[in-house]
Amino acid sequence: MTTRSLASDNGAGVHPEVLAAIAAANSGHASAYGNDAWTARALDALRDAFGGDAQAFLTFGGTGANVVALATLTRRYDAILCADSAHIVESECAAVEHYCGGKLLPIATADGKLTPALLAPALGPTRGVHHARPRVLSITQPTEWGTLYSVDELRGLTAHAHDHELLVHVDGARFANAAAALGVSLAALSGDIGIDALSFGGTKNGLLGAEAVVVFNPALAEDAAYARKQSTQLASKMRFLAAQMLAYLDGELWRRLATQSNAMAARLALALQDVDGVEFVCPVETNMLFPRLPRAVLEALQRDFHFYTWRERDAVARWVTSFDTTPDDVDHFADAVRRALRAHA
Amino acid sequence: MTTRSLASDNGAGVHPEVLAAIAAANSGHASAYGNDAWTARALDALRDAFGGDAQAFLTFGGTGANVVALATLTRRYDAILCADSAHIVESECAAVEHYCGGKLLPIATADGKLTPALLAPALGPTRGVHHARPRVLSITQPTEWGTLYSVDELRGLTAHAHDHELLVHVDGARFANAAAALGVSLAALSGDIGIDALSFGGTKNGLLGAEAVVVFNPALAEDAAYARKQSTQLASKMRFLAAQMLAYLDGELWRRLATQSNAMAARLALALQDVDGVEFVCPVETNMLFPRLPRAVLEALQRDFHFYTWRERDAVARWVTSFDTTPDDVDHFADAVRRALRAHA
Amino acid sequence: MTTRSLASDNGAGVHPEVLAAIAAANSGHASAYGNDAWTARALDALRDAFGGDAQAFLTFGGTGANVVALATLTRRYDAILCADSAHIVESECAAVEHYCGGKLLPIATADGKLTPALLAPALGPTRGVHHARPRVLSITQPTEWGTLYSVDELRGLTAHAHDHELLVHVDGARFANAAAALGVSLAALSGDIGIDALSFGGTKNGLLGAEAVVVFNPALAEDAAYARKQSTQLASKMRFLAAQMLAYLDGELWRRLATQSNAMAARLALALQDVDGVEFVCPVETNMLFPRLPRAVLEALQRDFHFYTWRERDAVARWVTSFDTTPDDVDHFADAVRRALRAHA
Amino acid sequence: MTTRSLASDNGAGVHPEVLAAIAAANSGHASAYGNDAWTARALDALRDAFGGDAQAFLTFGGTGANVVALATLTRRYDAILCADSAHIVESECAAVEHYCGGKLLPIATADGKLTPALLAPALGPTRGVHHARPRVLSITQPTEWGTLYSVDELRGLTAHAHDHELLVHVDGARFANAAAALGVSLAALSGDIGIDALSFGGTKNGLLGAEAVVVFNPALAEDAAYARKQSTQLASKMRFLAAQMLAYLDGELWRRLATQSNAMAARLALALQDVDGVEFVCPVETNMLFPRLPRAVLEALQRDFHFYTWRERDAVARWVTSFDTTPDDVDHFADAVRRALRAHA
Repeated sequence: MTTRSLASDNGAGVHPEVLAAIAAANSGHASAYGNDAWTARALDALRDAFGGDAQAFLTFGGTGANVVALATLTRRYDAILCADSAHIVESECAAVEHYCGGKLLPIATADGKLTPALLAPALGPTRGVHHARPRVLSITQPTEWGTLYSVDELRGLTAHAHDHELLVHVDGARFANAAAALGVSLAALSGDIGIDALSFGGTKNGLLGAEAVVVFNPALAEDAAYARKQSTQLASKMRFLAAQMLAYLDGELWRRLATQSNAMAARLALALQDVDGVEFVCPVETNMLFPRLPRAVLEALQRDFHFYTWRERDAVARWVTSFDTTPDDVDHFADAVRRALRAHA
Repeated sequence: MTTRSLASDNGAGVHPEVLAAIAAANSGHASAYGNDAWTARALDALRDAFGGDAQAFLTFGGTGANVVALATLTRRYDAILCADSAHIVESECAAVEHYCGGKLLPIATADGKLTPALLAPALGPTRGVHHARPRVLSITQPTEWGTLYSVDELRGLTAHAHDHELLVHVDGARFANAAAALGVSLAALSGDIGIDALSFGGTKNGLLGAEAVVVFNPALAEDAAYARKQSTQLASKMRFLAAQMLAYLDGELWRRLATQSNAMAARLALALQDVDGVEFVCPVETNMLFPRLPRAVLEALQRDFHFYTWRERDAVARWVTSFDTTPDDVDHFADAVRRALRAHA
Repeated sequence: MTTRSLASDNGAGVHPEVLAAIAAANSGHASAYGNDAWTARALDALRDAFGGDAQAFLTFGGTGANVVALATLTRRYDAILCADSAHIVESECAAVEHYCGGKLLPIATADGKLTPALLAPALGPTRGVHHARPRVLSITQPTEWGTLYSVDELRGLTAHAHDHELLVHVDGARFANAAAALGVSLAALSGDIGIDALSFGGTKNGLLGAEAVVVFNPALAEDAAYARKQSTQLASKMRFLAAQMLAYLDGELWRRLATQSNAMAARLALALQDVDGVEFVCPVETNMLFPRLPRAVLEALQRDFHFYTWRERDAVARWVTSFDTTPDDVDHFADAVRRALRAHA
Repeated sequence: MTTRSLASDNGAGVHPEVLAAIAAANSGHASAYGNDAWTARALDALRDAFGGDAQAFLTFGGTGANVVALATLTRRYDAILCADSAHIVESECAAVEHYCGGKLLPIATADGKLTPALLAPALGPTRGVHHARPRVLSITQPTEWGTLYSVDELRGLTAHAHDHELLVHVDGARFANAAAALGVSLAALSGDIGIDALSFGGTKNGLLGAEAVVVFNPALAEDAAYARKQSTQLASKMRFLAAQMLAYLDGELWRRLATQSNAMAARLALALQDVDGVEFVCPVETNMLFPRLPRAVLEALQRDFHFYTWRERDAVARWVTSFDTTPDDVDHFADAVRRALRAHA
């Protein structure tokens, strides 16, 4: 592997300011399980960032955040509508189904984005109790294909879901990349447009390991608190998660880091946009690129660089930039792609 | 709160060597989800420490480790025998029951220690399928009352369980304190005596947040791997858990830290052993003390010091020493106890 | 086995009027899954019997009824307080725990009856999210020891539970025996005193196989409907369950049958009350008797009669009379008991 | 509704021989929960019918049978491959997912039939623990579209699944219709070709309510027994389920009844095959017909006859014949269809 790979933003380490915040929190004793001053401040900071009545619950990881958020919104027999590319469908080993007890209803999309039209078949009459009860729409923002819902799209989809008696969850494992790309606040993409619960990611954008479940209806807070504990996501030394989250929100570090990873993805897209043999199958709107390449080129590149083949059937790869990806990294890689294409022309 | 409290070893921070190891691991990119060099080395180190075929799975937290270990040993309808003071009974919000699907069968003990005699009623004939099937004996070592099973006791109990077709799990959230107190290796208390799965704790003994599930039968490894992911305990940036575990095992840091916390508990017990009005309801064998105090004294102390009333009915408190507790901390607190007793005599 | 045993009221067959009702319902086609005229009438009849807003859901069996009722009242992390003799504890293979996701908190009793005093330890402060949240009190009426709560006791216990923010479920697998023994209506023991959900049994009292979950708060009806389907308890040919329930309610057949089985239990108790060597460990208030006998006598009787040893340690047996138990059956058995006692004197 | 509808074979009642068998079993007392002579004989009869080591477990209903069978074959994190028309997908309110804990992977088919080619995408490399582990192939025979796998197709698919380390479950809610249509024994479609577990239906073919889970590997029997109890499917008065099953197997009543319903479906198909405006979207091979009709015709017919619109988008209806459907019923209905077509021509 090269020092900085394009395999995943999970491959990057911890931003120095975050590591420093962890070290700074390592001072004396603190009450366990979130009854500490760092956590109190982090929850306040999250409320400030997401607005109004937002109540946040820190978790260890992103699958855990999704489980807690979706458990809070569902009963045991409920169905969750989502894109078939969603992380809860493709990458969480039935964790949501197991904890929540119902089922996911994956919907095929071209680019990870759901629309009212795509939802229509799932929102028709059900067969009553013979079907799991449609109860939640889970939207991934940005999507697993790196694409974005605009603020208006997200607001419209949320209203549409509410009109159909669905609650709305947003899986925001890369939420910072969305807010940075759209140039809006965190609240503008969540509380302000009426979503019910958010998984707000940090780990993929420079934290060591910390996410937050944000619920926007205070009546749901007790549910979220119990679900976090029962689903094994309540940290004993919570202050170290809180310290990360505080650093992340402080001066919008999240935006600074996401802006960098987004910019590096744009730079790579630009470098290859007119190159024959490379086709991006989705618009490059955040920090993920999905190029279709000649299979031999893809394989040749994978001998030198670590990244995943994302769709085997038509040789689409996934490249992910990270908060620490540099222009040199991008230029070096783009050169390698061009060389490989020439070699296999 | 004083700088270092007696409320819980979860209140202590991170040992400097562990923090340094985290910082050292923050170098370049690494494959996510455990496919990295730190994790490989940590798993090797755990195998070396626990012996033979031991396969380890790092988790974020202790409840998660228990869920993964017990899921690996059970089917959905199985019962888990354990002391009624066990953490899985008293402190995990039905996490084990929810994930595993069966039930716990708590057994009353005087001091947290199970014996063949105490198990006897639960090992008689069951009513077949009308009862959850007894399948696992979960032993806490050291117990939640701070007491210890000797190596022989643990070996005997394990053999007894196996004779009754039970698998054996050890909840070792403070396993280091047990091995340090008994002066034995980690393997001597686990793989060498035939237990089937172990939750090996680190967080309470100086780590930031890392535990390991150790399974001793290679045929169970696939189960553990899937259960870890599905139960939300698979870390994306695993290298930072692995780095902690490596530091913990390196030169037996775990023993050094546990020896210190055990010694401070012993010092506190010694300081108060002949003091009228203090009675330890269990032998002080590791880093936890359970003194019965006049209620007024208990309450007076709690105004100045943070610790829990553990058994309300007869005013038994819990004091826990940590890896960073100092002789001065102990002496200062012991003085306060004596003063409070005199003030309320 | 003798023709009519004392092992269980589940051993009895189907009352002729019930069988006739099943045969009568076997006429032409009917919509499946409860959308039929028999079911509509049965639900009306149940509403009439239980009063007011009662909504009923027929199920195949008693474990199923308990699962549906308790699922309707709980979320995944909730605890259910109950007597440790409760059927949900002792005889349902963790079905409630598995479906509902939380845990049972069994409370020791002398005779199966809970009291505010017995509940007190479980109603104290919890450790917050570290404990499953106490949410339901499940009362068995009559108890598994055949004893009864008076109407006042049940009302008082229900009010006490509500005062402590617990919902109240009654496991009434033998509810008819309770209402018959107390000489009250079904509503007097349920809707009239404020309970939240009832498992109303029929199978043990002359039905082939049909029970009803009755919920008294209309807001819970949707939950119950989905929980019944998801827990596999929705019958396709529902009319045949409905026909049984209609026959059961028609002219209070349930009371006639329960009165007979209660009377036969009373006759047996009377026949043996002054006989040395027989001691009933609980008052005989419905159709179950729990005699302590010399172990040799118990074993001798079991060679000729089928019944269970209920508590091994002090040789307590369980005898259960059924709707079809006759005075001759009772007298014959009482003679045998006396003979066996003399033979082993 | 007419006396005999085409809505569902669940709408039919109980065959007289089955009702007589229930009445005959209502003689004296019998041990509960399957420890009775009728059940012993039924299990023997099922072993004889399915062959070799087959062990059967009677259940109340079909969803229950599927839950028990699939629970027996899976662990909590396993995926079950099946047609997207499967009953477990479309009609069981996530019962399988809830009890088993993993997920279903529905595969689109034209006619409900899976093939190795259709399975291929799901049998490629998984993403390891990030995906639920593919573990079972669940085949519906006949399919929910009324189509059949030949013996060779079923044998081939089973072998293919086994080659890919999948166990094979057959949902045979209408298994009798398949065996009757193919003219083979029950064993020829199950044990003889190596499937692992079968849900053998009876209710849709003339029973009051009884199904059997058949497992072909004796090592799985204990699992099935516990899963049946925990999933609420263990009947207390089991003899009445057993009596139904005995009548069903006696002289192959199942074949006689299924042959009748199959023949009536064939008669209806024949009557309409050359009629303009009716198109059967699947071959009519058992007792279900799926005609595409002008929407106005479909709606006109539904004013007089009770049946379901099965696929709304192109106005495909479902007609199901039953064991008691008569030639007159068919001819009368076919006339009505022709009249309606003419009226809307």
